[in-house]
Amino acid sequence: MKKFVNDPDDVLAEALRGIAVAHPDLRVDAENRVISRAEPTRAGKVALVSGGGSGHEPLHGGFVGRGMLDAAAAGEVFTSPTPDQVLAATQAVDSGAGVLHIVKNYTGDVLNFEMAAELAEAAGVRVESVVVADDVAVQDSTWTAGRRGTGTTVVVEKIAGALAEEGADLAAVAELARRVSGAGRSMGVALTSCTVPAAGRPTFELPDDEMEVGVGIHGEPGRSRVKLASAREIAKLMVDPIVHDFGDPVGPAIVLLSGLGGTPLIEQYLLYGEIAPLLADAGVDVQRVLIGDYITSLDMAGASLTVVKADDEMLRLWDAPVVTAGLRWGA
Amino acid sequence: MKKFVNDPDDVLAEALRGIAVAHPDLRVDAENRVISRAEPTRAGKVALVSGGGSGHEPLHGGFVGRGMLDAAAAGEVFTSPTPDQVLAATQAVDSGAGVLHIVKNYTGDVLNFEMAAELAEAAGVRVESVVVADDVAVQDSTWTAGRRGTGTTVVVEKIAGALAEEGADLAAVAELARRVSGAGRSMGVALTSCTVPAAGRPTFELPDDEMEVGVGIHGEPGRSRVKLASAREIAKLMVDPIVHDFGDPVGPAIVLLSGLGGTPLIEQYLLYGEIAPLLADAGVDVQRVLIGDYITSLDMAGASLTVVKADDEMLRLWDAPVVTAGLRWGA
Repeated sequence: MKKFVNDPDDVLAEALRGIAVAHPDLRVDAENRVISRAEPTRAGKVALVSGGGSGHEPLHGGFVGRGMLDAAAAGEVFTSPTPDQVLAATQAVDSGAGVLHIVKNYTGDVLNFEMAAELAEAAGVRVESVVVADDVAVQDSTWTAGRRGTGTTVVVEKIAGALAEEGADLAAVAELARRVSGAGRSMGVALTSCTVPAAGRPTFELPDDEMEVGVGIHGEPGRSRVKLASAREIAKLMVDPIVHDFGDPVGPAIVLLSGLGGTPLIEQYLLYGEIAPLLADAGVDVQRVLIGDYITSLDMAGASLTVVKADDEMLRLWDAPVVTAGLRWGA
Repeated sequence: MKKFVNDPDDVLAEALRGIAVAHPDLRVDAENRVISRAEPTRAGKVALVSGGGSGHEPLHGGFVGRGMLDAAAAGEVFTSPTPDQVLAATQAVDSGAGVLHIVKNYTGDVLNFEMAAELAEAAGVRVESVVVADDVAVQDSTWTAGRRGTGTTVVVEKIAGALAEEGADLAAVAELARRVSGAGRSMGVALTSCTVPAAGRPTFELPDDEMEVGVGIHGEPGRSRVKLASAREIAKLMVDPIVHDFGDPVGPAIVLLSGLGGTPLIEQYLLYGEIAPLLADAGVDVQRVLIGDYITSLDMAGASLTVVKADDEMLRLWDAPVVTAGLRWGA
């Protein structure tokens, strides 16, 4: 295992130390492993809390900041945060206006966020939740009932975060978050496995001439394992299932092509050069696009494509200022 | 070789196609392989042109935009752009106020930029040049007389770009660029080799339990090949040579910790958690820090640390608005 680590069991705690020292505008609660904005939530502002297993950076901690999340609970690598962690995050950022939980659809995450929501409500915090389940690859998966949650989460966090920043109330922010979540579809392809530090070896074996189509962000099996294909063929394997799943023509959309951690930007752009004409042919009118590492799987070589059908309100909020470590513009 | 490619010989041309379709605010000259701002250079504004071999993305094309570069000439992977390419970039963006060439110190780059500068001047374009040679690892190297140019280039492009945006003249922009260039020191560590697509196999062999200390951004040998060490020890191997090279206490500084392409963000933050206290102990007062993939070596696992001694003017210009694919804030 060739990684920048000390003790493989300390990866999360030590990465949080780096985040704390690099970003004075964030507050890192080392005990609860919660990253939140250093400034208290403005009175009356709905707070957004997300979280999940670590190893997908910049998701979620890298999206904490003005115009996006208020806090993120960081589980151990590929492990759901505990209810206590999510509760701590929730209580740390509630201004009284309530908290929206943004949850990726993995069984542990869903259960632990639900439990945290109950505990928070018992303590007087209003909580709404949105569960993102956008991965069209498979219906159920290793750790999931229903579809897995992946790249659309970034778009939900951005757009709902912008609406909360404008002062919308909890019901409105939750409603929009659910709308964005429902409008997103994703599909990933792995060229290599990732290696969880505490395991010290690749999560799965993938021969030199094969790839995993529809891989999950923890290396869960996808739809099929096939011979390594050209970027042109891979683009089709990503675009077709998404377009097929939408059914109706998509129209205006926000598109995210995320590297999975071990794939450099030059390959991501090359791949996007193949994806773009396929999207256009399929009636996807790409209004905004992000290319880079936004939701990753440790050091996995691969990429995931996310398409979110976007109305004018979503586009306006997408363009609103955001100041986070992982996404920043307009301010 | 597990990469998103079609024909390995077409990687650059096809990546440029992806850049063109993803970024309507950029103009991609496919024939000359030049990325420039879509808007013509404002009358009277000094233009900044950089470039070099591809495979280091987002450097340089990802830094073209308001507040940073006006154009970048993209050579083939790990291959200097030709004089013709650099000339085309230079002529495309000159507004009459002259052009600053920002060149990383590799023999081919230096010669080809020099030749392009002569051709441009013969065609009536005033050109000044700054050569960045900040890598403290080795004095001469595979493709270099003197030190190699690496991460400080990002800082030069940002700060000189901001000054040019303010309307400073060519002499002033060049003088500041040289000052920033002279104030920077870098040191990289590779945990794995990279694989050049056209070669199809790793550039160098590195056993599973070894790492290359002081590696170059094309995989050139560094100072020593040693047993794989902990992040804590690696941090020391990066910080010590930089601090030693500065000699005098550094004081206020801009710090860049860049992944080399195959190292995920969680490891980069963990490593920075080890680097930060060492910098503090050595009298480096970190005023600004960037962590992420900014200057890469294709899919190499590893990281490079850059420390630039920064005065108030440099910090002010660092904070100025920048709108590029790879670096964006304040607008």
